[in-house]
Amino acid sequence: MNDSLLLQEILQQPAALQRLLEEGRDSIRAAAAAIRDYDPAFVTIAARGSSDNAARYAQYLLGAQNGLAVGLATPSLFSVYNRPPRLARSLVIGISQSGQSPDIVAVLRAGREQGALTLAISNDGDSPLARAADHCILLRCGPERSGAATKTYTSSLLAIALLDAELAGAQERVDLLASIPRQVRTLCERAEAFRAAGAAQQDMRSCVVLSRGYNYATAFEIALKLKELGYVLAEPWSSADFQHGPVALVEQGFALLAIVPSGPLAHSLTARLKEMRERGARLLVISSQAGALTLAHTSLALPDLPEWASPLTAVVPGQFFALGLTQARGLDVDQPRGLRKVTRTR
Amino acid sequence: MNDSLLLQEILQQPAALQRLLEEGRDSIRAAAAAIRDYDPAFVTIAARGSSDNAARYAQYLLGAQNGLAVGLATPSLFSVYNRPPRLARSLVIGISQSGQSPDIVAVLRAGREQGALTLAISNDGDSPLARAADHCILLRCGPERSGAATKTYTSSLLAIALLDAELAGAQERVDLLASIPRQVRTLCERAEAFRAAGAAQQDMRSCVVLSRGYNYATAFEIALKLKELGYVLAEPWSSADFQHGPVALVEQGFALLAIVPSGPLAHSLTARLKEMRERGARLLVISSQAGALTLAHTSLALPDLPEWASPLTAVVPGQFFALGLTQARGLDVDQPRGLRKVTRTR
Repeated sequence: MNDSLLLQEILQQPAALQRLLEEGRDSIRAAAAAIRDYDPAFVTIAARGSSDNAARYAQYLLGAQNGLAVGLATPSLFSVYNRPPRLARSLVIGISQSGQSPDIVAVLRAGREQGALTLAISNDGDSPLARAADHCILLRCGPERSGAATKTYTSSLLAIALLDAELAGAQERVDLLASIPRQVRTLCERAEAFRAAGAAQQDMRSCVVLSRGYNYATAFEIALKLKELGYVLAEPWSSADFQHGPVALVEQGFALLAIVPSGPLAHSLTARLKEMRERGARLLVISSQAGALTLAHTSLALPDLPEWASPLTAVVPGQFFALGLTQARGLDVDQPRGLRKVTRTR
Repeated sequence: MNDSLLLQEILQQPAALQRLLEEGRDSIRAAAAAIRDYDPAFVTIAARGSSDNAARYAQYLLGAQNGLAVGLATPSLFSVYNRPPRLARSLVIGISQSGQSPDIVAVLRAGREQGALTLAISNDGDSPLARAADHCILLRCGPERSGAATKTYTSSLLAIALLDAELAGAQERVDLLASIPRQVRTLCERAEAFRAAGAAQQDMRSCVVLSRGYNYATAFEIALKLKELGYVLAEPWSSADFQHGPVALVEQGFALLAIVPSGPLAHSLTARLKEMRERGARLLVISSQAGALTLAHTSLALPDLPEWASPLTAVVPGQFFALGLTQARGLDVDQPRGLRKVTRTR
């Protein structure tokens, strides 16, 4: 009964994902049919916070699997500057759990006025965002009451992955996604070990979170949890960009958290971690790859999934890790200082 | 004679900018004419490091002034995954001082094969990037030998601003840009004060760098200089996204560097700084606005320019600040550990 809201909501993820699989199918099929029919020249996604991290996943997934060029919107062009760029011929997607943020709604409205096809992904089907869009994929997570997003993030990823698979008519990918609730449940059974790993790092005040490709999104999302819950200055980096400067940060004892999935990046990411370890970095590794896990000072093992689906599970150990670190520091995970659940930026 | 390469190159900026204004005009006009003729549905920019920060400026400038929807490319889709999205109907821009990075070149090549219009912005007209593109704007900075980019960054911004003004046929903006070398020279005359401000912060190990809109690019670029030169874990944030979680980081003594230009953001950014100061943040402010400067513990004053042009000057105090901080810590500004000038990421 004393569980934090955050822990409850992390543990609700398998059920929320299952509900979206069962009840969201029709709206996802309808959106996919409309997109095929419209045949957009490009895609613009407007989102903030965790939803923006889900948008990063969509950039890679829709790009690699459906050949769609996806850009992340600059909402201030639509709100602060009132100079919306031309969006006709595009698909405009807004992702927001609350569906309330005026600048995200402004991007969808501008798109619709210009004749773009618009899609909302939201946990509130009656929100301004949902009402502004031609199509809405409702996340069906139930209310998210903790300040930090968890179940709405993984459900947003699943909505994107289902939409992508429907768009491509890839039944084998739809089938694989049906296994995700079970995979996440298995990870939830290891909650204590992941929390203990976080608790052991309670003195960590800063770190870099490294990945690339599909899990660039995971790096951003875990870094955001560490910042907003544990007040850790955690900065996400693409392992390619990291070499262009920030690598200079690495010195003895520097904490580096890496997400290493299967696929074409596993080899180069692991080689990079080896270099960082030789330079004295303290490595925390979330991976399904034995080669990467054995390099780690702290290893959080993932189930082996195709790389494109791995972000749906890879964030979960990070959620528990951030929870464990935060509680070990004696902080309140449900009431981070300065954080409001619905942020109404203009 | 004992000046670091970095200081020499920072001080070369007025001359480099002047050279681009005088000698780059024809190539910029030719590129603008080709873009008008091609009439792209959208723009994709591929870049890494400081060049990627220049790309962020282009997102806002080309969006606000020419109505172009600009997305930042995900180079790994083109290289690691070999799944390039559809770029026909788009303008593809590659920005790289060396023009060598294989993954950036791969984006241009894929675009050209698909029939997109391609443009390189590079300091080497004979580089693979320049040779892969339909058009090239040569930066004409002379060799950049220090590990950290300075003059190629400001010249990239000027190339983008000139292209944008030519595209819009906005002579008054071309005229204003002609004053930039003089404005930067005036800032260089205050080098000692900016370096002393950095030296006074030599104990800073982490900070957040905040701005929004046009100067989102400036926040990223100053944060990158602080990381790669001074090993400061400096994380850039949009002031809107910052409210979605990272604001929780702010506690007594937390260092927050903000760039506050003129324009519609000045009021809200200043209000945010006031809140942060009340929560105990230590404020370093780069601004042309008296209201923001008076809130600061350390203030670095800028000339008053229209907001769209301000990133060309706003980064300069940050360059000197990072130099001063780094030298006060006894570090070598020309040889940051782990940094190679040409990064050949795939």
